[in-house]
Amino acid sequence: MTELAAAIAVVGAALAAAYGNQAVITKTIESMTRQPEMSKELRTTMFIGVGMIEAMPIFAVIIALILVFVK
Amino acid sequence: MTELAAAIAVVGAALAAAYGNQAVITKTIESMTRQPEMSKELRTTMFIGVGMIEAMPIFAVIIALILVFVK
Amino acid sequence: MTELAAAIAVVGAALAAAYGNQAVITKTIESMTRQPEMSKELRTTMFIGVGMIEAMPIFAVIIALILVFVK
Amino acid sequence: MTELAAAIAVVGAALAAAYGNQAVITKTIESMTRQPEMSKELRTTMFIGVGMIEAMPIFAVIIALILVFVK
Amino acid sequence: MTELAAAIAVVGAALAAAYGNQAVITKTIESMTRQPEMSKELRTTMFIGVGMIEAMPIFAVIIALILVFVK
Amino acid sequence: MTELAAAIAVVGAALAAAYGNQAVITKTIESMTRQPEMSKELRTTMFIGVGMIEAMPIFAVIIALILVFVK
Amino acid sequence: MTELAAAIAVVGAALAAAYGNQAVITKTIESMTRQPEMSKELRTTMFIGVGMIEAMPIFAVIIALILVFVK
Amino acid sequence: MTELAAAIAVVGAALAAAYGNQAVITKTIESMTRQPEMSKELRTTMFIGVGMIEAMPIFAVIIALILVFVK
Amino acid sequence: MTELAAAIAVVGAALAAAYGNQAVITKTIESMTRQPEMSKELRTTMFIGVGMIEAMPIFAVIIALILVFVK
Amino acid sequence: MTELAAAIAVVGAALAAAYGNQAVITKTIESMTRQPEMSKELRTTMFIGVGMIEAMPIFAVIIALILVFVK
Amino acid sequence: MTELAAAIAVVGAALAAAYGNQAVITKTIESMTRQPEMSKELRTTMFIGVGMIEAMPIFAVIIALILVFVK
Amino acid sequence: MTELAAAIAVVGAALAAAYGNQAVITKTIESMTRQPEMSKELRTTMFIGVGMIEAMPIFAVIIALILVFVK
Amino acid sequence: MTELAAAIAVVGAALAAAYGNQAVITKTIESMTRQPEMSKELRTTMFIGVGMIEAMPIFAVIIALILVFVK
Amino acid sequence: MTELAAAIAVVGAALAAAYGNQAVITKTIESMTRQPEMSKELRTTMFIGVGMIEAMPIFAVIIALILVFVK
Repeated sequence: MTELAAAIAVVGAALAAAYGNQAVITKTIESMTRQPEMSKELRTTMFIGVGMIEAMPIFAVIIALILVFVK
Repeated sequence: MTELAAAIAVVGAALAAAYGNQAVITKTIESMTRQPEMSKELRTTMFIGVGMIEAMPIFAVIIALILVFVK
Repeated sequence: MTELAAAIAVVGAALAAAYGNQAVITKTIESMTRQPEMSKELRTTMFIGVGMIEAMPIFAVIIALILVFVK
Repeated sequence: MTELAAAIAVVGAALAAAYGNQAVITKTIESMTRQPEMSKELRTTMFIGVGMIEAMPIFAVIIALILVFVK
Repeated sequence: MTELAAAIAVVGAALAAAYGNQAVITKTIESMTRQPEMSKELRTTMFIGVGMIEAMPIFAVIIALILVFVK
Repeated sequence: MTELAAAIAVVGAALAAAYGNQAVITKTIESMTRQPEMSKELRTTMFIGVGMIEAMPIFAVIIALILVFVK
Repeated sequence: MTELAAAIAVVGAALAAAYGNQAVITKTIESMTRQPEMSKELRTTMFIGVGMIEAMPIFAVIIALILVFVK
Repeated sequence: MTELAAAIAVVGAALAAAYGNQAVITKTIESMTRQPEMSKELRTTMFIGVGMIEAMPIFAVIIALILVFVK
Repeated sequence: MTELAAAIAVVGAALAAAYGNQAVITKTIESMTRQPEMSKELRTTMFIGVGMIEAMPIFAVIIALILVFVK
Repeated sequence: MTELAAAIAVVGAALAAAYGNQAVITKTIESMTRQPEMSKELRTTMFIGVGMIEAMPIFAVIIALILVFVK
Repeated sequence: MTELAAAIAVVGAALAAAYGNQAVITKTIESMTRQPEMSKELRTTMFIGVGMIEAMPIFAVIIALILVFVK
Repeated sequence: MTELAAAIAVVGAALAAAYGNQAVITKTIESMTRQPEMSKELRTTMFIGVGMIEAMPIFAVIIALILVFVK
Repeated sequence: MTELAAAIAVVGAALAAAYGNQAVITKTIESMTRQPEMSKELRTTMFIGVGMIEAMPIFAVIIALILVFVK
Repeated sequence: MTELAAAIAVVGAALAAAYGNQAVITKTIESMTRQPEMSKELRTTMFIGVGMIEAMPIFAVIIALILVFVK
């Protein structure tokens, strides 16, 4: 059961990160093509957003690694 | 069963945070490209919103960590 | 079974709060960019709305904590 | 089984309240930006609506608390 | 099994009431902003609608309470 | 099993009634704002419609009550 | 198992009748607001439609009642 | 198992008939409001369509009745 | 198990026939209101289409009847 | 298990054929009303398309009949 | 279990082929009505496309037949 | 279990190939009708795309054949 | 269980690759018809994108092959 | 159970990577056709985005490989 739990945790992390990052990056690319002169400020906001989105999946990966190696 | 519960909790936290943050950040980027002169006020509202959204997933991560380490 | 119930409760709280808050905050940001002169009144309504939405998930988190620590 | 039932009840309450409140509050904010002079009457209707929506989830939370503490 | 049945009944009541009320209230707010001079008649229709929608969930809550306390 | 059956029956009644009534009432409110002079005839049709929609859920509630009290 | 079957049958009847009737009644109300002079003919078609839709759910209710009382 | 099979059969019949009839009747009402002079021909096509749609659910009801009474 | 298989087969037939027929009939009614002079040719195509769609569900009903009466 | 497999096979065939045929026939009727002078060529393409779509469901029906009669 | 596997395989083949073919044929009919002078080249592409789509479901049917007759 | 695995593998291959190919072929036909002079280059890209999409389902079919014949 | 795992892995790879590739290739074809003079650069980006998308499904196929042959 | 967990992990990785990459690459191609002079900057952002999206699925693949080879 521990292996299954680790797999579920890391898959959820991958799906959540992919969904969140893709939305932010896609919107940033779309906005850059509309207003090229703001591309610097937009990319900064993109990095902040990606960082805030990846905070939770990182925890999921850590718990998955603990479940695989420790338990 | 405890491992599975921890995995479910942390995956739910990751999905909820990714979904919530992505929506707020995406809309902020979209609004910044429309009205660049409001980008400061919008980013402030974004940080407040991300903070309020992440409050619940943090609890889920904490409960997951308790389930992994303590129980 | 108690751990699973706690995990389900806290995940539901995270998802509900993320979905509800994200909708309110997103709409507030969208409305602020349309009518910047109303941004103060809109943010007030946003805080009231977030408070009313978070009331139920808080109960879910409390029940999850009770299930983890007491039972 | 009692714990699981309590978790399901409180999660359903959280989801229902978040979905219902979010829709009413979002529409209120949207309407306030269109017709700022009606913002007082709209907010009154919003409070009535939120009250009527929260009546049922409150019962769900109460039943969940009874299941956790009494049974 | 009785606890689970009570939880399902009250959750269904909460979801049904939240979905139904939210739709009626949201549409009322939307219509009030379009035709402010009809807001009195619309709110009357809203109260009738909410009453007719809440009739069935009330039965669900009553059956849930019977299942919790009597059986 | 009888309790679960009663819960399913009454939940289905609540969901069906909420979905059906909400659609009819919402459309009536929307139509009243478009043509205020027809509001009387529309409300009559609304009452007929709600009556015809609630006929089946009433049977579901009755069967649920029979399952709870008699069996 | 008989109780569960009766509950499923009556719930399906309620959902089917609510879905079908709601669609017909909603469209009738919408059409009446567009062409008020045809409201008599439209309401006649509505009654025919509701009658044809309710024919099958009535059978489901009858089978549910047989399952509850006879078997 | 026979009761459950009968319930599933009759519920499927109710859902299929409700879905199919509702679509045909709704479209007929919509078309009658657009071209009132064709309402006779459209209603004839509607009756043919409802007849062809109800052919299969009738079989489902018959099989359900056989399962309830004979087996 | 045979009864359940018969129920599934006949329900699938009812759903498939209702879905397929409804789409063809609906589109025919819609097209007849747009081009009334083609209503004869369209109805011919409708009968061909309904015939081709009902070929497979008929097999499902036959297999269901075999499962009920023979086996 | 053989009966259930036959039921699943023939239901899948009915659903697939109904979905595929309905789409092709619906689009043909729609195209015929737009360009009546092409109705001959379009109906030819429709017959080819229906033939190609029904090839696979026929195999499903054959396998279902084999499962019912032979095994 | 072998019969169920064969049924699943052949149903998947029927659904995949119906979905794929329907999309290609529908789009071909739609394009032919827009540009009748290209109908020859479009039908050639349609046959190529149908051939490439049916390659995989054919394998599924073959495996289903092997499972029914050989094993 | 081996037969079920083979059936799942080959069904997944059929669905994936049908979905992928259909999208590419449909878009190619749509683009050819818009710009007939590019039909040669578009068909070349279509063949490349179909080849790249079919690479993975081919592996699934191979594994299914191995599971049927070897194991 | 090993065969089922291999089937799930290779099916997931097929679905993921088909979904990802189809989206990229479809958009490339659409863009080539809008700006034919950029077709070279677009096809290069398409090959890079397909390569990056196929990296993960390749791992899934490899793991499936290991599960079939080694374990 | 370990093989199933590895399969789930690697399938989730494939799906997440395919979904995320496809969205970013598709939007990049779309934006390049709108503003060809920005294609260099857009492709750079695309590579950053793909790198950030693939970070989590890589972990899932690694955990799958550990589950296959080590455990």
